[in-house]
Amino acid sequence: MSNQETLGLTEIKEKIQQLSDQYIHCIDDDRLEEWPEFFTEDCTYKIISRENYARNLPSALIYCKSKGMLKDRVSAHRNANIFEAHFYRHIVSNSLIMGESNGVYQVQSNYVVFQTKLDGNTEVYNTGKYVDQVVFEQGEPKLKERLVVYDTLNIPSLLVTPI
Amino acid sequence: MSNQETLGLTEIKEKIQQLSDQYIHCIDDDRLEEWPEFFTEDCTYKIISRENYARNLPSALIYCKSKGMLKDRVSAHRNANIFEAHFYRHIVSNSLIMGESNGVYQVQSNYVVFQTKLDGNTEVYNTGKYVDQVVFEQGEPKLKERLVVYDTLNIPSLLVTPI
Amino acid sequence: MSNQETLGLTEIKEKIQQLSDQYIHCIDDDRLEEWPEFFTEDCTYKIISRENYARNLPSALIYCKSKGMLKDRVSAHRNANIFEAHFYRHIVSNSLIMGESNGVYQVQSNYVVFQTKLDGNTEVYNTGKYVDQVVFEQGEPKLKERLVVYDTLNIPSLLVTPI
Repeated sequence: MSNQETLGLTEIKEKIQQLSDQYIHCIDDDRLEEWPEFFTEDCTYKIISRENYARNLPSALIYCKSKGMLKDRVSAHRNANIFEAHFYRHIVSNSLIMGESNGVYQVQSNYVVFQTKLDGNTEVYNTGKYVDQVVFEQGEPKLKERLVVYDTLNIPSLLVTPI
Repeated sequence: MSNQETLGLTEIKEKIQQLSDQYIHCIDDDRLEEWPEFFTEDCTYKIISRENYARNLPSALIYCKSKGMLKDRVSAHRNANIFEAHFYRHIVSNSLIMGESNGVYQVQSNYVVFQTKLDGNTEVYNTGKYVDQVVFEQGEPKLKERLVVYDTLNIPSLLVTPI
Repeated sequence: MSNQETLGLTEIKEKIQQLSDQYIHCIDDDRLEEWPEFFTEDCTYKIISRENYARNLPSALIYCKSKGMLKDRVSAHRNANIFEAHFYRHIVSNSLIMGESNGVYQVQSNYVVFQTKLDGNTEVYNTGKYVDQVVFEQGEPKLKERLVVYDTLNIPSLLVTPI
């Protein structure tokens, strides 16, 4: 847990930024099988509305409590879910370390996801922020928790691809 | 003023980036009371169209000439203005130091602000660039001037929340 | 070619990020005459659809094979093409070095271009990713290849300004 002893703050920031960049290219390049590997084994991944997050209400659009559940989601996405073909394009910016406690870094970033369907039109699909807890395992950053706190309540289709 | 002597260029860039990140999370998280603290006492904050900026015309949508005026704006926003509830989501990217003179850094960034209203729809509200003058006070970066040069002339509602 | 000997990885990343930032401000500030200078003499600049890129099909919307061809494009843009006045606003994020081989860095970034026309409305014009090969000449990064791989098939007007 003693990352501060071995990694400098600049290096920690750089690695957290790199995690963020790799995460979105993984999704946008449709390498979803690699997606769970950004998380710890006992992770939390939750997609929750801005309002429920602010009022501390538990209801979420997606709620996964372990890496295993993330793998199940990818498997369902590949084999079971039926949905209109689409492509995501993430822009994630302004990642900021809000605090640190016992080797857990609180990190917040803004995101927008654009969606392009087969008709070739691109639209704003969803905006919001990531609220993350990042830990280091063997010197590499992992998401212990990623809350996707979304602004856009009007989700025009089944949310099947992770954000 | 001799930041160059005490802070390296990499550290200066890092601190300016952090200022930019903190600024937008402050607005998007609705902590507007903290917003004036990003500026110097004698600051300039102006929201001006691309065309007026290019032609050096003075007319601006918002023009504040001191930190006190920024505080007044926040106070009006909280207590006086009547407007439809909405949420902002900023994406600010590609911050670039364009030059430096006597400890004043010229910095330019691109921004897009998305707006979500209570119906839950998110739309592109405004795009443009920040043209900043950043100084360091006690080693911390402050906005001596922020010009919000906007592309989007068609502003669909009263612009009440700072950009 | 031995950049690794003279430049550290952090510095290389920083310089590649700076190239990316300068590139978009050059276009968005309408300094197109400087745009070819981001490329090597024998560069490739191609705007290609996601599908053609994935299937390795050659057809591209724009295909330039040298810096000279880029200069020709700018010249045509200034003097020959007839098109509706418009402004671009780029957001380029999440630049990631995917690999390196013989001093050539493979870099991938996500982009969105917003377009504002004279009516003052801003819309999502195009999203996609840059797939770049970056080399260093006299310590400065240059684009040996930039592939603009776009999601948005529906391009509502002649694509005249480079992305």
